[in-house]
Amino acid sequence: MDPTVLPRLRALLRPDQLDLSDSALDLRARGESSDRQRRPDVVVYPESTEDVRAVLELAHATRTPVTPVAVNSSLEGHTVPLEEGISLDVTRMDRILEVAGEDFLAVVQPGVTYPRLNEHLRATGLFFPVDPGAEASLGGMASTNASGTMAVRYGVTRDLVLGLELVTPTGRVVRTGGRAPKSSSGYALTQLLCGAEGTLGVITELTVRLVPRPEATMGARVAFADVHGCVAYVTELIQSGAPVARCELLDAPAIGAIDRHLGLDLPVVPTVFLEFHGDADAVRRAADVALELARDHAAAAAEQATDPQALATLWTARHQAYYAFVAAHPGMANLITDLAVPVSRLAEVIDASVAAIKRLAVPGYAIGHVGDGNFHLTLFFPPDDPAARERVDAAYGELVALALAAGGTSTGEHGVGWRKLPYVRAEHGDAVDLMWAIKDALDPAGIMNPGKKLPPRAAPEG
Amino acid sequence: MDPTVLPRLRALLRPDQLDLSDSALDLRARGESSDRQRRPDVVVYPESTEDVRAVLELAHATRTPVTPVAVNSSLEGHTVPLEEGISLDVTRMDRILEVAGEDFLAVVQPGVTYPRLNEHLRATGLFFPVDPGAEASLGGMASTNASGTMAVRYGVTRDLVLGLELVTPTGRVVRTGGRAPKSSSGYALTQLLCGAEGTLGVITELTVRLVPRPEATMGARVAFADVHGCVAYVTELIQSGAPVARCELLDAPAIGAIDRHLGLDLPVVPTVFLEFHGDADAVRRAADVALELARDHAAAAAEQATDPQALATLWTARHQAYYAFVAAHPGMANLITDLAVPVSRLAEVIDASVAAIKRLAVPGYAIGHVGDGNFHLTLFFPPDDPAARERVDAAYGELVALALAAGGTSTGEHGVGWRKLPYVRAEHGDAVDLMWAIKDALDPAGIMNPGKKLPPRAAPEG
Repeated sequence: MDPTVLPRLRALLRPDQLDLSDSALDLRARGESSDRQRRPDVVVYPESTEDVRAVLELAHATRTPVTPVAVNSSLEGHTVPLEEGISLDVTRMDRILEVAGEDFLAVVQPGVTYPRLNEHLRATGLFFPVDPGAEASLGGMASTNASGTMAVRYGVTRDLVLGLELVTPTGRVVRTGGRAPKSSSGYALTQLLCGAEGTLGVITELTVRLVPRPEATMGARVAFADVHGCVAYVTELIQSGAPVARCELLDAPAIGAIDRHLGLDLPVVPTVFLEFHGDADAVRRAADVALELARDHAAAAAEQATDPQALATLWTARHQAYYAFVAAHPGMANLITDLAVPVSRLAEVIDASVAAIKRLAVPGYAIGHVGDGNFHLTLFFPPDDPAARERVDAAYGELVALALAAGGTSTGEHGVGWRKLPYVRAEHGDAVDLMWAIKDALDPAGIMNPGKKLPPRAAPEG
Repeated sequence: MDPTVLPRLRALLRPDQLDLSDSALDLRARGESSDRQRRPDVVVYPESTEDVRAVLELAHATRTPVTPVAVNSSLEGHTVPLEEGISLDVTRMDRILEVAGEDFLAVVQPGVTYPRLNEHLRATGLFFPVDPGAEASLGGMASTNASGTMAVRYGVTRDLVLGLELVTPTGRVVRTGGRAPKSSSGYALTQLLCGAEGTLGVITELTVRLVPRPEATMGARVAFADVHGCVAYVTELIQSGAPVARCELLDAPAIGAIDRHLGLDLPVVPTVFLEFHGDADAVRRAADVALELARDHAAAAAEQATDPQALATLWTARHQAYYAFVAAHPGMANLITDLAVPVSRLAEVIDASVAAIKRLAVPGYAIGHVGDGNFHLTLFFPPDDPAARERVDAAYGELVALALAAGGTSTGEHGVGWRKLPYVRAEHGDAVDLMWAIKDALDPAGIMNPGKKLPPRAAPEG
């Protein structure tokens, strides 16, 4: 880092907004699930858009890398400052600025977490329906285009962001989008910035859509002898057009790990958890349809779940799944897939995934938001066994190739970070060059979250 | 146009793919509702992606402007070749390439119109739910991010495009997006290209989402003594979270014009037309809620409409509204507003619009997709009366300012073209500079649809 940066940061910010302590640098050296570590030179805590602007202006002028971070729950290494420099921690920008219930929107700073926003909205009858787990921040969720268990019903984060305030990589403050439900004016910068993973600037404010809390909610648990049975059932359920709000698959090892981690006693069998939102009649009819179809598919078990407390426990358990897996394998490295494919291709890709677990003979778990074709395989291996890592990586590469051949994606919701970089060009081809053209145009100094999102540029021809 | 272009086009294409006739050049000199005309040098009819690629490569090399066009139903002058050059008419690229019903998607060429796609889908139980009217093409609808009467329920075109094939302004073919229901890989090029109005390249293929046809449909007609009553009613209906699929306002002059144009006898009073989609129980309950609320609001009339034929007639009438207005004022110039605002601000902006019609003392009509805060005022004035035009423009400017102050937009669905250019910087501020950075990065020669979408660059400082 340029030696003038630190003294200039000290001139811009209060002493307690800079942190050079070992503990802070170590904390920001890694993210969840990432065994690659790199310490930043300094952790900076902006408290306002103006703080962010001043830091980015300085970073641009001095070619200093900037890696934004908030809750740091990324599973793909997004927040690891691969080229050191500034770790820009926006957790202090955590104000809920406005709730406009009559327009179904809220305005928040990027450090606000979705559980806190929903707690704040409790009295309004509205909620923000994206739940990636991990008490994620809205800024991070927009940056990775996060989704979660309810995307099949309410859409992904990109669908639910109406407007942003952005500090550009050259230190300018701009606003994108607005408050109207729709617009055809200007380029879709809001959508472009959602999912840009902090490579095109720092989000300092979000205007997000809210949706009415459902009048009634009903759940269902449907179990099968094997994962294939679950997926065949889900595929037909979704293709029937049934109004599902949540549709989650958990294989038997996943449920076993969750039971042990949380002291629950969910039956340890491949299971689909469903939830329906609507008025009382609608959810009852939807649940009836789902259970009838389960019987047609010769489900091993199929039952409604109407107790709100039991339902809440279930979804908490689902959100704790990753932590349950990690707790079961202390000290092990892991790899998490995030494939998403068209629903008609789900069975084939999940079957291949289950076969890969067996073939590799490593501990593995399959869970997923199968209603929108997205699922996660978590595979564990010893961190000091390069041969095991290589075998797992090779199997993973085959699964990605299968998903891409089916018209799918290597990442349905986690984003690319640096861990999914090897698969981006295979998915997007020459469109990657357009992405680089945009990146270079908006971040000419290349300071924003370098080494993430976009794979290396194509080698010049000739 | 560079003198080498025409001979080189002749070498690339068959003779019947080039048109230099007066009738063709005149036809492509103007769009709907635009009294500004400019003839292209040549009309070109590509029949394949390769044709488009070859033409754009040549245009890039020779700095030849290219203006894409299909059905030419734009109301904002998008298709007028302001800098002459090539009018690229994609109407021959009209194949429906694939319908994958099990994945709720279709793959089409840009010249396919939405009525033809829906006719083709009739047996599948699915449909494409964006209906801007005018037998619009999917390519044009994606380019303007069109919506229509059902956006309040199903979203706008940008929400429903999963992937694109694009010929870039330098003549390269890239694919964006995919077939999976969601993805967090790469920048959101698909969303960026939707609404770019042909300024970032030519869309040569679209993968679009389809939705299940509703099991049941029910309509309702609710009339009030004045437009304000209609809007107050709609505002509360939407804010109640009622599951509305269509929610259209027509003022009394608009209904009168439609009645005369189509030989109908709809009661000539300010009216809200509603439609509900779902299963039979759900639509009945929704209609009951809507009619009960209408009585609470002391509606002048409130009745259900269950006859499918009557409903179809109603929506045909709604889609013909613009043509009915034009027919009522032969030879007159017009101005169409396309304001969209948060629903809570709709009453104030529509009241101001109605007052403007009265004050201007020109023929005017108010209609709109008020469920998502979007409405259109169509004002007529003599084409040869600069003073009248100036008065209408001034009033329009005030309405746009009011909408922008409410967090709204100058164009909810028609796009900018050149007619809305004066309002883009007021809406987006310095974000326009980011848009230009993207435009310059992807279209360095500035050939794609010049003079549209983005207002002139900011003057250099100092």
